[in-house]
Order: sequence, then C-alpha cells, then structure tokens
Amino acid sequence: MTKVEIEKQMRRLGNAARKAARAAAVASTAQRNNALSAMADALLKSAKHLIAENSKDLDAGRDKGLEAAMLDRLKLDHERIQNMADGLRKITTLDDPVGQISDMQFLESGIKVGKMRVPLGVIGIIYESRPNVTADAAGLCLKSGNACILRGGSEALHSNLAILKCLRAGLKAAGLDANIIQVVPTTDRRAVGSMLQMDDSIDVIIPRGGKSLIERVSKESKIPVIKHLDGVCHVYVDEDADLDMAREIALNAKTHRYGVCNAMETLLVHKAVARRFLGSFAKAIKKHKVQLKGCDRTRKILRSAKKASAKDWTTEYLAPILAIKVVDDFDDAVAHIEKYGSHHTDAIVTENHTLAMRFLAEVDSSTVMVNASTRFADGFEFGLGAEIGISTDKLHVRGPVGLEGLTNQKYIVLGNGQTRA
Amino acid sequence: MTKVEIEKQMRRLGNAARKAARAAAVASTAQRNNALSAMADALLKSAKHLIAENSKDLDAGRDKGLEAAMLDRLKLDHERIQNMADGLRKITTLDDPVGQISDMQFLESGIKVGKMRVPLGVIGIIYESRPNVTADAAGLCLKSGNACILRGGSEALHSNLAILKCLRAGLKAAGLDANIIQVVPTTDRRAVGSMLQMDDSIDVIIPRGGKSLIERVSKESKIPVIKHLDGVCHVYVDEDADLDMAREIALNAKTHRYGVCNAMETLLVHKAVARRFLGSFAKAIKKHKVQLKGCDRTRKILRSAKKASAKDWTTEYLAPILAIKVVDDFDDAVAHIEKYGSHHTDAIVTENHTLAMRFLAEVDSSTVMVNASTRFADGFEFGLGAEIGISTDKLHVRGPVGLEGLTNQKYIVLGNGQTRA
Repeated sequence: MTKVEIEKQMRRLGNAARKAARAAAVASTAQRNNALSAMADALLKSAKHLIAENSKDLDAGRDKGLEAAMLDRLKLDHERIQNMADGLRKITTLDDPVGQISDMQFLESGIKVGKMRVPLGVIGIIYESRPNVTADAAGLCLKSGNACILRGGSEALHSNLAILKCLRAGLKAAGLDANIIQVVPTTDRRAVGSMLQMDDSIDVIIPRGGKSLIERVSKESKIPVIKHLDGVCHVYVDEDADLDMAREIALNAKTHRYGVCNAMETLLVHKAVARRFLGSFAKAIKKHKVQLKGCDRTRKILRSAKKASAKDWTTEYLAPILAIKVVDDFDDAVAHIEKYGSHHTDAIVTENHTLAMRFLAEVDSSTVMVNASTRFADGFEFGLGAEIGISTDKLHVRGPVGLEGLTNQKYIVLGNGQTRA
Repeated sequence: MTKVEIEKQMRRLGNAARKAARAAAVASTAQRNNALSAMADALLKSAKHLIAENSKDLDAGRDKGLEAAMLDRLKLDHERIQNMADGLRKITTLDDPVGQISDMQFLESGIKVGKMRVPLGVIGIIYESRPNVTADAAGLCLKSGNACILRGGSEALHSNLAILKCLRAGLKAAGLDANIIQVVPTTDRRAVGSMLQMDDSIDVIIPRGGKSLIERVSKESKIPVIKHLDGVCHVYVDEDADLDMAREIALNAKTHRYGVCNAMETLLVHKAVARRFLGSFAKAIKKHKVQLKGCDRTRKILRSAKKASAKDWTTEYLAPILAIKVVDDFDDAVAHIEKYGSHHTDAIVTENHTLAMRFLAEVDSSTVMVNASTRFADGFEFGLGAEIGISTDKLHVRGPVGLEGLTNQKYIVLGNGQTRA
C-alpha cells in the first residue's frame, strides 16, 4: 500500500471509531456487561479457530527467527484463551464509572453544580506481541464507555484479527456498534505514524511495551499519551527503621520478580544503620544470586559489591542486579530519589511518623509507600480490579490506570430557570 | 540575542523553576497564604511605581498604534491595582488542595491505599496584554503548590516585570524561593518557541488569549496544554420547555455579555414549539439589536432573519449575532451539538425529566446544563473561587479550571511490613 492509501484506511478507522464512541458512551451498564460476557463466550467457542490462526503467527515467527521468549509471549493455548475469557467476565463485575455524579453543590445563585464521570472517547492502544492484550484492553475500554483502536505487534496480526472477530460478535450480540472495537488490519509500520497524527478522531494514546516503543510513540504523537517509561524504584531504609521489616521489604521488592516495573532497582540506606542493615540484607539475598553494586560507603561494608557508577542510579535493570547507596539522612535520600528516580514507585521503611508523612508529601512519584514493598504498585493490588497500564505522567492520572483513568469528569448544572445577573 | 542565547536564558528559567517547584510543593499552607498576603501588600505599596512602569508600556503602545481597546486592557490604575491585591487576598481564603488525602481503602493484603492531591510542578502560562493576569495566575499557581513561568504580551513587559518584583518580594517575605514565580524577561517571540520545547522543566502550558495564540501554542508545544479554543455554546428549547423560562434563559445566554466564551452562539428550537417560541423570543431580543441568522424553517417564522450558512453553525461570533435552527426532535438537537459544537457549554430547557437526564449524559461538553443560562459556566459561579481558564480538552480537567485543576492525585500506600506473596 502507498502512504496515502494507509492514511485513508486509518482515517476510515478513525471516523468509524468516533461514531462508535457515542454509541459506547450512551450504552447502558447492562448492555456493556452483556457484550463483555458474550465476548468471553465467543472466545471460548472459537478456541480451535484462535489456536489455528495463532499457529500461523507462530510459524511465521519461527521462520523470522524470533526468540523463544517472544514466541512464548505470542502463543495462545486453551489455558490462555480461558484466561482472556475470565478477564472479560471479571470486568463485568467492576463498578461502572460512567455517569457517576459527585460533588453536587447548591449555590447561592440557585443553580446546582456537580460533576459527572464520562468516557474519554476513542482510545488508541499500541502494544507488542501478547495477543491477550487485545481482549484485556478492549474490555476495559468498553466497560468505561470508550471506543478503541488497537494496534498490536505485527507478528500477532492473525491472532489479533481472530480475537477481534470474537469481540465484535460479542458487541453485536448485545446490540452494540461493532466498531466500538477495531484492530489496525495491517502490519505496515507507517500505520502507527498515521494513527499518531489523528488527533481529530483519537482522544488518547496508551502505548504498552518496551521503552523504545513508548519513546517513539511519545515523540511522534500529536495526541495526548498516557504512559510510563521507566520504573527506577527505590526503597529507603531510614535510621529509625525496624531493620527486620526493612530486610523483608527490600528482599521482596528486589527478588519477587525481576522483569517488572515496580521492582526495586536502587536501595538507599541511612548511614547510621548501614553496617547493621547491609550485613543482614546481603546474607538474606545471597541465595537469590543478585549482583550488588554500591557506592564507596556501601563497598566498605559489602566488599564483594561492584562499584556503582552514576549511570547505575538511573538504570532500570529488570534483572537480578541491585544498586545500593548509603545516604547521610532523610533529605539526602529524598534528594537522590528526586534526582535519579523515574517517579514510578518509591518506599520508605521507618518507624518515625514525621518522616513517614514527609516522605509521602515530598517524594513526587506516582506511588509513594511507607513500610510496604514496591511490588504492591499494581492495579489489582490497589483494588482497581484491572489495569490498562501505569502512568508516571503529571497530568490526568498517576500510578496504576484502571477504569476511572479511562474517564474524566465534566460539569453538570441543574437549574429551574436561573439567569445570570 | 541569538537563538542559542534565548534558549540558554529559557533553560536557566526552567532549571530555576524546577528547583523552586519543590520548595512550593513542600511549603505549608500558612507559608503560601502569607506570601499571597505579602504580595498584595507589595502591590499596593508600589502602586506609584507600577503606574509609572505601566505608562512606559502605554506610551510605547500608542507609538505602535495599538487600538484603544487594547490600550485599555493594558492600562493599570489604582483601582486595577487594588483589584489585583484583592484577588490575591481572596486566594488565601480558598481551601488548600495540596496534601488532601481521599479514598483510603483497607485491602486484604493488609496495606492501606489512598490518593493524595499534589501540585503538577511547573506551570507555563502564555497570555496577552492584561497585566493583571500576571498576579492572578501566579497567585493560583502558588496556592496550588506550583511554580510558574509567565510569558505575557510583549507590549506589557515593563508592567509585568514591575508586578513580578512585588510578587517575588511577597515570596521572600514568607521565606519562600523567589523563583517560584518568574517572568520571561524578553519580548523576543522566539522565547515562546523555546519555552514550548522545555518538556523537561515545564509540566503543563496554559495559553490564555485569542484563538490564534492558543492554536499556535497547541501546535508547537511538546508540553501538554490545558486550553479551550472556541465557545460555540448552544441552548436547546425542547418541545416540553416552559417557554417563558426558555425565553429568559436564551435572552440571558445571548445578551448578558457578547464577547465571552460562555455566551450562546446557536439557539436550537424543537419544531413543535418553534412558531410560538421564536415569536416571543424575537420580540424580547429586539431591543438588544442582535442580528438573527436562521435555517429555512426559522426564516419562515422570522422573516427578517438572514440565511444561516453551514459556517454559521461552527462560528463563535463573540458579537450581537445569533444563529437559530429549528430541529426535528431531541436527537436532532443533540446530533447538531455534537457535530458543530465546541464541547464548551450547552444547555437544554425542558420540563421532561427523561430528556433532561439524557441531555446531561449524551452531550459530550465540558459543562452541560438543564434549565439554566450558559453564562453560568465560570469558575466563580461554580464556587471554585477563581479560575485560571476553561478546558474543553478530554484529559485531566474539563470546564472551568480552579486550584484542583492545577493539581493531580498520586497513590499513597501505608503498610506495616507487607510484602507481596
């Protein structure tokens, strides 16, 4: 296809989505839930077809020489299809944010003013190879009254189109516009570039995947983006920490899972407890074979630790590697987090109430914790029921993004004939 | 100055603002209020100096041949200085949004999760000739715990720098970093271009002024923008409207003030009541000498009305001109608003509860009203105490933007040693 043809195709998708967004926004809660259930049914009923289409992607991926980990992410089997269906059914049980009215005030002029929660409109989602994102993301967009345009990894196109067929069957079964959910039907990379210019028909872009994808999307997009780039998360062990608690939290934050954005990447320790704490921590983490890198003061205590360079303080390892720094005091710790951190998730371990409260107020990250593992920064753990991503941006939504983050509030005014004097 | 020098100068402002934003965010409510009061005192004490500096701007403006209306907007006198000071004192009385904790939940894992309201960081404000915006905008940014970089109209630079001096004196008197408030100290237009690229040091841009300014800013900015472009506001007179109420609302919405974004620009009337309503409305509006333009059905009733073209439905007149359209029914009215409107403020007049509720839900505008004049869409009328602007965007904030719109919520987690299983 030529560039012009791609743009024309994308424009068609955009116009259809804009129209469908109105249908999604005014659909009743029951209609949207019925569609989600019907989508789950359709996925289970089409399991054989889904697996057949997926095997086309897998074969092509093998021919292209994709890595084993990538092929595994790409793979659909009965269990994963069941998980997708269960995910959609779970979304039916979540509270519907759409139409919720709050903050109703009765003002002197006689008007009543409040806020009503409403969908954002059309959500563009750009993601990599996991085909389950197609169902998960579409389900969250539908439940929050939005239409979506999905652009998955090109190596998953057969799988995604097969999943799409089930999702659209679910929409139709509930009497809804099938264009509420669309998939970009081409593997041409220029389609993404074209999509990112469509600020008339897409209201927000959510990129999900590796850093290079998210950087490209942020850089090119004319449309507002909800995203996070890095998760350089810190645990600060304060002078007044319960050191046993601190050890368990730091251990969990580092070793529970390595390849996740809410894992601890840098450990900060108050100099007054550094010797006692680091000795016990190093002993506890030994069996996990985590490579320790430290500042000079750390290395005086942990002689086997490698020397950390400035670059380590800003690195999201996503691996069994940990940077450790001994800090002078609370202010030094906060200054380090503000200078080198990524505003994702940071925790203090302390028994000192004043410092705990100061940490909450002064650390400008999307999630700030006292005496808990950074691994809790997650939509499910926070009770959102599901998440479409995590935002480290300053506007609109910070931290795990659930249904509410896919909506906004408009003002509503109820009067009985008021005019302005 | 060369482009490189301007960029360097702007970079210095940006770095100072980023540092000052931390000071603003952690300042106590009392400190921020004390600064606001001291700023008001300083403005009053410096009235003579302010007027002298302002007269330099006025002289230069006259030499440049600025229009009388523009010169009037530019002018500072004792009354206007008093108003600026009163505005700052008023801001001290508003509730402090910073640090407010809400939605605290106790979860099964044992952690407590809630949200804390926090400043956005550094706000860039780009505006036109009124120097009072310098004090108003800076006051709102400070109260909401933000630093700001202000870029006023080049014709007001002497006035703005003189006001800045008072504002910074107020900050210093309260023991705060004076760089919490900065003014771009050059009239060079390239400074705006440079400012709009500084996404490392500015978190959000708020343009205030004419449409061309806002369009330029939106197009060039790498930083998220909070804005509204147009106010094409509608009043829809439903079949079940109290026609006397409808007449008063429509009259107020059109004639209370013409040059404002929440004035009605298009009147929609249900065909079943068109003849009765339009006759009485035309009689009532006659003395205001508003030019009426209408669709064919309107012109059969109001023979003196000019023919409205497609362009009229999307035009913000900001003048004594009104477009009128007779619609078939409620759905036709909503479809018109969605197709031609600007998502600013739209009202229905009806006694029908179901249609009133449908209008609230189905019209995707930043403010939606039942039985009230669109002129109420305003931060003061909504009880926000003040407004820094109005947003017709989909993300972050919709409608009048007050202190809360200059903040966001982050997640906070309180634990007592929880780790993830």
